[in-house]
Amino acid sequence: MKITRKDFPRPLDLKTGRIDLSHGAGGRAMAQLVEEMFLAAFDNDLLRQGNDQAAFAVPPGRMVMSTDSYVISPLFFPGGDIGSLAVHGTINDVAMAGARPLYLSAGFIIEEGFALADLARIVQSMAKASKEAGVPVVTGDTKVVERGKGDGVFINTAGIGVLPEGMAISGDRARPGDALLISGSLGDHGVAVMSQRASLGFETEIQSDSAALHGLVAAMLDACPSGINVLRDPTRGGLAATLNEIARQSGVGMVLREAAIPVKEAVRGACELLGLDPLHVANEGKLIAICDPAQAETLLSAMRAHPLGRDAAIIGHVVEDDHHFVQMETAFGGARVVDWLAGDQLPRIC
Amino acid sequence: MKITRKDFPRPLDLKTGRIDLSHGAGGRAMAQLVEEMFLAAFDNDLLRQGNDQAAFAVPPGRMVMSTDSYVISPLFFPGGDIGSLAVHGTINDVAMAGARPLYLSAGFIIEEGFALADLARIVQSMAKASKEAGVPVVTGDTKVVERGKGDGVFINTAGIGVLPEGMAISGDRARPGDALLISGSLGDHGVAVMSQRASLGFETEIQSDSAALHGLVAAMLDACPSGINVLRDPTRGGLAATLNEIARQSGVGMVLREAAIPVKEAVRGACELLGLDPLHVANEGKLIAICDPAQAETLLSAMRAHPLGRDAAIIGHVVEDDHHFVQMETAFGGARVVDWLAGDQLPRIC
Repeated sequence: MKITRKDFPRPLDLKTGRIDLSHGAGGRAMAQLVEEMFLAAFDNDLLRQGNDQAAFAVPPGRMVMSTDSYVISPLFFPGGDIGSLAVHGTINDVAMAGARPLYLSAGFIIEEGFALADLARIVQSMAKASKEAGVPVVTGDTKVVERGKGDGVFINTAGIGVLPEGMAISGDRARPGDALLISGSLGDHGVAVMSQRASLGFETEIQSDSAALHGLVAAMLDACPSGINVLRDPTRGGLAATLNEIARQSGVGMVLREAAIPVKEAVRGACELLGLDPLHVANEGKLIAICDPAQAETLLSAMRAHPLGRDAAIIGHVVEDDHHFVQMETAFGGARVVDWLAGDQLPRIC
Repeated sequence: MKITRKDFPRPLDLKTGRIDLSHGAGGRAMAQLVEEMFLAAFDNDLLRQGNDQAAFAVPPGRMVMSTDSYVISPLFFPGGDIGSLAVHGTINDVAMAGARPLYLSAGFIIEEGFALADLARIVQSMAKASKEAGVPVVTGDTKVVERGKGDGVFINTAGIGVLPEGMAISGDRARPGDALLISGSLGDHGVAVMSQRASLGFETEIQSDSAALHGLVAAMLDACPSGINVLRDPTRGGLAATLNEIARQSGVGMVLREAAIPVKEAVRGACELLGLDPLHVANEGKLIAICDPAQAETLLSAMRAHPLGRDAAIIGHVVEDDHHFVQMETAFGGARVVDWLAGDQLPRIC
């Protein structure tokens, strides 16, 4: 028996083709999508092992693992798309432990009828972000759901990283007296995404700040190997939710100085128009650091010396407070409690 | 200032409550869902670190990482649900490298309006599967999408595991002459799920075979520390897709003996009714092993001695074949090519 069989008779039609249910059914169509779309973009030796898992050597010591699903709407926005966001966001969650991110997994849930051209654009953006960050996608999965049972594409990424010896950065380590720093201006991502939501009917030149922060973290750790107690990226819920979380975890309060918090004029204006507080708006390329007050100026200098920390600022400090309040001293000399949102101010922002 | 503030005024209403967009918005409602639903069920020290990532020590050596998203419909089926499946499936992908699964991440994408009672049932089933397997969920994420933009709940899990020294099990290591074994009967999962899809209007007592296979793999490796070349679980696309994948990866052909392939009578009957081939139907608690022929009987005995391998069988062997065909010798003495499916026989089966 000598029959010549090509595995895939025709290449994927990246101009006019669309996802159908067969692309998730485990047969030939799925194999072709994986090979011509995902393997082609993410190309690396681990992924090319072609197994249902990737195997690799890791340095000895402790590791971290993190995951996020991305359901942002719209899929494309000024400064990024769901693909680059899915790489940056999970790298950042790994880096916020002080870990060096090593590898990512990627799981796609695609709606039947989604344009292959849009998928290719997203996957290529994801591959570019991954290569720029030096954190390869080494294993993945593709599922397809019927039309009307999804929304274009959802992406999950999980990430692992390695913790340097002795690293003990955690949300429960903020201590009264610690300084509170932010790496740059607040609200850019949320406002950029909302500017694309047609129904809101306003436009702005603000771009998402979506970026991988592990390089900034490495520079901060070089400058202050032992003084950083907490790192966290203020994404969903914004700075307000992130600080309230940490206040609860550490059993402390916080006091912010309103005048010290960097917010771009265009973001401030858009927030006023929309009735939003920039403290509640999501960021995807910013981090907060809580550190030993004696090292705050050193840390600030290290952050400002990095391209992703140019607008870093010391914005407040940690206090004793049994109620774990986050308070803000306003520009007018008053004080108000910065609460987390109860409701759904900005759904599907990430 | 001494104001008493309870973080969550009322507990989640697990009887009549429903998911709304605030449960994914990063504020107080999400924190409550995470705490009262996810932390309560998955309870472990790593998850209780409360950070956006989990940190842990790992043994020295090589590791594996895998991910799968689960979009199965219906969410509950005989023998399991999307929660237990999401634990078993990813543990199995890790175990198929010969690795010992260590930790899981879990990402939930929930549709607005989904009943909290159903979510609780799924999360508790997931926690039970995780505890029984000894593989804890150590980090997670929750997103909510608007009504009509999802389908109840989708779950992604990623898993990591540690590879024993010298382990080299991979889909590209099948060699002509190798024996081909299956751990039990084919098609149980797919038929169990289809029996629940109301529109198909047929019933059966078949239960999904969904199970975590890392214990079986450990027993197999104990019996044959060096003779196993390939392990893989024949999920989507069934045995046919899995063997075709391996044949391509290893550059070999395979010959199956139809009479040797275990299929339960009820599954065979249901497949005939539905016009399906059991070789194409998904399994979630079975594995195929390709091994040195000299060790096939030893391996078979070890598999049969394990509760999840009682019906194990030697079903064929690997041959040289430049076309990488998977062929089957039929009960009547003929031969046919076992191809993968081109289309979407069984969408959303996992």
